[in-house]
Amino acid sequence: MDIGMLRGKTICFAGSGGLDSMTIVSWLREHDVNVECVTADFGQPDEVSLDAVRERMLAAGARNVHIVDLKKSLANAGAEVIKSRAFHTGRYWNTTGVARHVLLKGMLETMSSLGVTIVSHGCTGRGNDQIRFQHITNLLQPEFDVYAPWRDTQFLAQFGGRKQMIEYCTAKKLPLKASADVIYSTDANLLGLTHEAGVLESLSTPASAVRPTMGVPVEEAPNTAETVTLRFEKGYVVAINGEAGDHLAIMLRANDIAGRHGVGLNVHLVEDRVIGIKSRGVYEAPGMELLGTAHEFMTQITLDERSQRLFTHLSHLLADHIYRGIWFDKTSSAAMAAIDDLSDGVTGEVTVKLYKGHVAFEGARDIPASLYNSDNASMEAIGTFSHADSEGYVRATGQSIKMAGVAGSKNNALLGRL
Amino acid sequence: MDIGMLRGKTICFAGSGGLDSMTIVSWLREHDVNVECVTADFGQPDEVSLDAVRERMLAAGARNVHIVDLKKSLANAGAEVIKSRAFHTGRYWNTTGVARHVLLKGMLETMSSLGVTIVSHGCTGRGNDQIRFQHITNLLQPEFDVYAPWRDTQFLAQFGGRKQMIEYCTAKKLPLKASADVIYSTDANLLGLTHEAGVLESLSTPASAVRPTMGVPVEEAPNTAETVTLRFEKGYVVAINGEAGDHLAIMLRANDIAGRHGVGLNVHLVEDRVIGIKSRGVYEAPGMELLGTAHEFMTQITLDERSQRLFTHLSHLLADHIYRGIWFDKTSSAAMAAIDDLSDGVTGEVTVKLYKGHVAFEGARDIPASLYNSDNASMEAIGTFSHADSEGYVRATGQSIKMAGVAGSKNNALLGRL
Amino acid sequence: MDIGMLRGKTICFAGSGGLDSMTIVSWLREHDVNVECVTADFGQPDEVSLDAVRERMLAAGARNVHIVDLKKSLANAGAEVIKSRAFHTGRYWNTTGVARHVLLKGMLETMSSLGVTIVSHGCTGRGNDQIRFQHITNLLQPEFDVYAPWRDTQFLAQFGGRKQMIEYCTAKKLPLKASADVIYSTDANLLGLTHEAGVLESLSTPASAVRPTMGVPVEEAPNTAETVTLRFEKGYVVAINGEAGDHLAIMLRANDIAGRHGVGLNVHLVEDRVIGIKSRGVYEAPGMELLGTAHEFMTQITLDERSQRLFTHLSHLLADHIYRGIWFDKTSSAAMAAIDDLSDGVTGEVTVKLYKGHVAFEGARDIPASLYNSDNASMEAIGTFSHADSEGYVRATGQSIKMAGVAGSKNNALLGRL
Amino acid sequence: MDIGMLRGKTICFAGSGGLDSMTIVSWLREHDVNVECVTADFGQPDEVSLDAVRERMLAAGARNVHIVDLKKSLANAGAEVIKSRAFHTGRYWNTTGVARHVLLKGMLETMSSLGVTIVSHGCTGRGNDQIRFQHITNLLQPEFDVYAPWRDTQFLAQFGGRKQMIEYCTAKKLPLKASADVIYSTDANLLGLTHEAGVLESLSTPASAVRPTMGVPVEEAPNTAETVTLRFEKGYVVAINGEAGDHLAIMLRANDIAGRHGVGLNVHLVEDRVIGIKSRGVYEAPGMELLGTAHEFMTQITLDERSQRLFTHLSHLLADHIYRGIWFDKTSSAAMAAIDDLSDGVTGEVTVKLYKGHVAFEGARDIPASLYNSDNASMEAIGTFSHADSEGYVRATGQSIKMAGVAGSKNNALLGRL
Repeated sequence: MDIGMLRGKTICFAGSGGLDSMTIVSWLREHDVNVECVTADFGQPDEVSLDAVRERMLAAGARNVHIVDLKKSLANAGAEVIKSRAFHTGRYWNTTGVARHVLLKGMLETMSSLGVTIVSHGCTGRGNDQIRFQHITNLLQPEFDVYAPWRDTQFLAQFGGRKQMIEYCTAKKLPLKASADVIYSTDANLLGLTHEAGVLESLSTPASAVRPTMGVPVEEAPNTAETVTLRFEKGYVVAINGEAGDHLAIMLRANDIAGRHGVGLNVHLVEDRVIGIKSRGVYEAPGMELLGTAHEFMTQITLDERSQRLFTHLSHLLADHIYRGIWFDKTSSAAMAAIDDLSDGVTGEVTVKLYKGHVAFEGARDIPASLYNSDNASMEAIGTFSHADSEGYVRATGQSIKMAGVAGSKNNALLGRL
Repeated sequence: MDIGMLRGKTICFAGSGGLDSMTIVSWLREHDVNVECVTADFGQPDEVSLDAVRERMLAAGARNVHIVDLKKSLANAGAEVIKSRAFHTGRYWNTTGVARHVLLKGMLETMSSLGVTIVSHGCTGRGNDQIRFQHITNLLQPEFDVYAPWRDTQFLAQFGGRKQMIEYCTAKKLPLKASADVIYSTDANLLGLTHEAGVLESLSTPASAVRPTMGVPVEEAPNTAETVTLRFEKGYVVAINGEAGDHLAIMLRANDIAGRHGVGLNVHLVEDRVIGIKSRGVYEAPGMELLGTAHEFMTQITLDERSQRLFTHLSHLLADHIYRGIWFDKTSSAAMAAIDDLSDGVTGEVTVKLYKGHVAFEGARDIPASLYNSDNASMEAIGTFSHADSEGYVRATGQSIKMAGVAGSKNNALLGRL
Repeated sequence: MDIGMLRGKTICFAGSGGLDSMTIVSWLREHDVNVECVTADFGQPDEVSLDAVRERMLAAGARNVHIVDLKKSLANAGAEVIKSRAFHTGRYWNTTGVARHVLLKGMLETMSSLGVTIVSHGCTGRGNDQIRFQHITNLLQPEFDVYAPWRDTQFLAQFGGRKQMIEYCTAKKLPLKASADVIYSTDANLLGLTHEAGVLESLSTPASAVRPTMGVPVEEAPNTAETVTLRFEKGYVVAINGEAGDHLAIMLRANDIAGRHGVGLNVHLVEDRVIGIKSRGVYEAPGMELLGTAHEFMTQITLDERSQRLFTHLSHLLADHIYRGIWFDKTSSAAMAAIDDLSDGVTGEVTVKLYKGHVAFEGARDIPASLYNSDNASMEAIGTFSHADSEGYVRATGQSIKMAGVAGSKNNALLGRL
Repeated sequence: MDIGMLRGKTICFAGSGGLDSMTIVSWLREHDVNVECVTADFGQPDEVSLDAVRERMLAAGARNVHIVDLKKSLANAGAEVIKSRAFHTGRYWNTTGVARHVLLKGMLETMSSLGVTIVSHGCTGRGNDQIRFQHITNLLQPEFDVYAPWRDTQFLAQFGGRKQMIEYCTAKKLPLKASADVIYSTDANLLGLTHEAGVLESLSTPASAVRPTMGVPVEEAPNTAETVTLRFEKGYVVAINGEAGDHLAIMLRANDIAGRHGVGLNVHLVEDRVIGIKSRGVYEAPGMELLGTAHEFMTQITLDERSQRLFTHLSHLLADHIYRGIWFDKTSSAAMAAIDDLSDGVTGEVTVKLYKGHVAFEGARDIPASLYNSDNASMEAIGTFSHADSEGYVRATGQSIKMAGVAGSKNNALLGRL
């Protein structure tokens, strides 16, 4: 789509009140486009006030600003991510990708109630978010259109980057958010923050260049460790230190506890964007890291090796789908159905110790479906398993290996290097 | 095999000078078996003296004790593990499994020179090591036999556990290693230490119950960070802080640096032994963790997403094969051939910061095959990629997603939970 | 377990009335073991009479012979195999493995009603069936024991093979089944027949050495093709040529139609038994091949590429689990949950043409969830997808490939061979 | 790129002498573009004369027509496909994708010698070939440009489909190839033919609507079977019926033999194009099917299960890369390196029987690395493997399954359905 097709029409714009949003809405108004603005309340840790966002978007020309409370929905989504441990390579918890799915679900519902059928957003033409906007809309509302100014040659001709937008907004006397010099770009919600661009584009910039928002740097974490007990039911964390809560309460509490010990902050990753270009990000998600690490301790105890392999396969698949904006597709649905089934026995308590960014195993108990049996694990002659049985085992499994040995089928290159 | 088949024969026993070794060799002598003992010099960080091992094994009745220097071979093997990042689930660097392969390679060569064809070892009938001994021997010397006293019902009838062995050795006046009460069992070599059994069998025992040997606990690590620069060539670390060295020198230096910052110690894992029984281990491998983390930073920059996926697939395969004692098989050979090819461009320098157990990215440079291009990564209108092209991209990829949307093919369960 | 532990006890033996069954039951009686015999009615295509089986087992000394009708259960199981396309490598439809699961489920229920807790069977110590008996019992009734005479050294000392068993039965005047010289061993049920051993052990024996039981050899198939229309609902075939039926009726009908055209007979496979030894089998499963081929045509139309990849991954997993006797485990459960979800849209009709062993696509219709759209597939300028969009697509995806090209990251070995 | 950027420049066009090629070259000349034409000699089975192609392209305005003999290169590529069994889902041997790689390699070499740096082609904006042209060029010559008229809005505005092109060529008096009414579109080379579009776009059209070019329909195949012996060396077929030849000679001979028995013709597939749209093809590749089937028989005998799993994983990867035009990338290189290693033992002879479209196993011999041992495979008490050992095996592997049984970790949904 291009701007020429929109004159006189009404679109729904996902606006954050930032420089891009202000510029785009004002420019759309110039081109006679009516703008309904949707802003998500994601419990953004870095946000001063959604009222201020509303004011700025109205000042830029939005006809209405719909602030949609998606905090519970986002926390629910986060609980599904923990349950499936769907982190991206390098331990990035996909917090932006998850939030885009939650946003679009809420935004498309709002649009349906308004009778608006054109989605618009301020994501650039090089990133992943534009693709998520498109694919999620295509799937949930295939008859809706998506308009992305940053992919419109007319818009691009006028705005090459931040400099031109600042000049434009200043000329228009639009109330830009007062901010210190931005040295990188941040996306924030209650699950986590992602930082990219700016000084982070240079691989000479250390990961520590980002000052975390959701907790303290490891260097400033307390010298005293804190133990935390997490209760799981069927893969979900339902209580922290004995205090139950819904997914939102759990997530906020986990953020608080983990953040103060520097857990899950400053995660560095050179990643491959959906279209294949490498980019570099620094991520914070303290609560997700705490809950996710405890979840892994739980599944080590409750899932056998085959189940863990399938779980891991599906985790990667789901993480990839969140990243690509196809978490609502049929394949994801099937993967989640399998994860649901595997989560049947992921019930019990894990205690961990938090200390200077580490989440260490302290103990586990009350796990009805535990597959761990200390008698059978013991090297002593206790439990139900006779040591002598292994003689038959190795003689059986050794048959085919001997055949390979006789056939000379060996790792000769490796043998030659040792 | 059972003891009845060995009378008057000569076997080669892998002996460590510990309680099991002493008991077994003495018992074998009682049954008229000649014992050539092989002991590996693996640069064991916890070992006082290999001479003492020799004396004890001779006292127990060994005819000869062959101390084989396998330090270089083991370090070479460790370099292959780093190159393929073949760590076991939960970040255990497979240090015992790797050492078993190196030991058997050396031991079988020694045996061939001695003309002995029966391998023997003191591994119990429930663990992984017995399986590694069998499979590695089956592959490299398919005509050799393996005798495992711990799987022989006659031996088991006499020795149910540590208690009977101590009584036996005391009665025989064998010179047991003076030791404090052992609260868990340890396997040590220059790549790392693995701890299991004893108090670790209870899931109420925290991971911190193990006092690390190869470095300091995180709590005792210095308050000042240290930066380290690692130079890679084709997937191998060839210099640390500008100082070149062979794989052994690099590994020892990496252990030293990482150990003093508490890196890669007290890794906890509930794992599935080869036969499927769950056991619990605590692992230390500071140098491997340092080198492996830096290697991952390198491949994020030099391998595209497809290559990374294949690399990860092969890493898991190789890690599994090391764990199962089939690292010398043909499949491992093929996997390493692919890793070799993927390592062509893994050349350059990474700088990391070590601080209280963390290895953080500080910077990377001098990487000729880098796929990272800060201009193309930028959200600004620089580089070779036009933002407008993405309009076509998403319209193309969106076609099939729209079709799915029209067909109602959605993740309805997940949508209903948000 | 060995025979010494069974004196005076009652076991439940899975008996077929064949040479092995007769020998074992008679031998068990000699050792004062009470034998309840269970025989499955699987609609065995090669069986004369289950009454004759009963008579023979009673003659051998069984206290009771329980003939359990498992035809519906087996056909239901077959429908799940089709739904998940869980064929083993090389297009063997796992008919024996499936039947072992169904048998054990029925047998263990019978045993529970009889109060017997020791399972016994006549499977040899080299094959897969013994492992299936053990694992299925271990999972469904972990407190039950399994006794396998062919793994008991006392039994093995007396019976080295067929010759000794024939002599034994003749001496005991047991009523052996009159049979022509058996040149290979067959396992039969209504899903299919598997042939192994005997002349098939030589790789010089052609697959055509097996004369099929469930249909005609391709050479004898009619010269006239037959078209068949199969109606699917959520992954199950529910009607053939418009005639509905339960899974048993559908399977019998499919066997009949496909068998007369030589479909799915004489499938040859050199496979790897569970313990790793290679063996060779020839398989027939005409109905499964017909239904499974049509199912694949359906999923090509209704599942997108991502779903097909997940489906295939799970198919292989499930096929492997059936083969290994762990189809009732948790991992299989999770995999089936995902398959169930993916099958939501596998509804519609496929018509195929059967001719001399081939199942060819004739047409498909009435598929509500079809993702195929002939307008969008067309190279002509019709449908919703503009050809020009692809310019953006390839420029976007080409960015990372250009980067690789600049970095010299190429398949040089392959380039050098062309 | 669009036509406006090409005025006065010289491009290199991959021309086939067909309707599209004629139209495009003539239209390019109208816009003052100099056209060097490259035409591959691929031994196209459906082609009358490459001289006629040359004449037509010159008549359309090409400045020069370079006919490049790529028959050997294509056959070499085909041999690599067989060695890695890189067929696409549904047994399509990727013949078009392979040929695009070979074409571009040859074409880019020709262009370098001519000093031309703009690649052009007549592939439409919906298909896979346009993507292959782009990606292969991007990788091999990242500084070259690609111009695709079918993605240029100016060209599209003038030519909506075949109708307008025929009118245009007729008006221009261009010498169109005399042809019967084309009812589908075909791509041909010595490896195989692919048919799509036209009547094949309807799922009501049977696969048999395509009359094969490379052999006879199954219905017309002889009533007498023919046996063929194929000799493999390290994964390559090097002789047929004892007669050696290079890859080209082998492929032509295999096509001839298999074609006359109706092997590998009329393969039907509803597939997912690279961009995700479903399309439908009918494929013929008789020689590839014959060689590939024999290759599978060889690897069943020479690769253990682990090697086969890795082989299959890499086959799928390579097939996907050929399909997507990235067969020359680094990941493919690594995958081929592993395949090379796995092919070490794929040496020996397989005899198959061809009959009415079937390739049946007749026998195998002279395979030094064979892992098949009929003694160990036998159920009789011969060979090196004692049946009694399996008692230990199943007791060992059964431990974890019993634990799961006790924990109630079962496939309850499936159990409830049987």
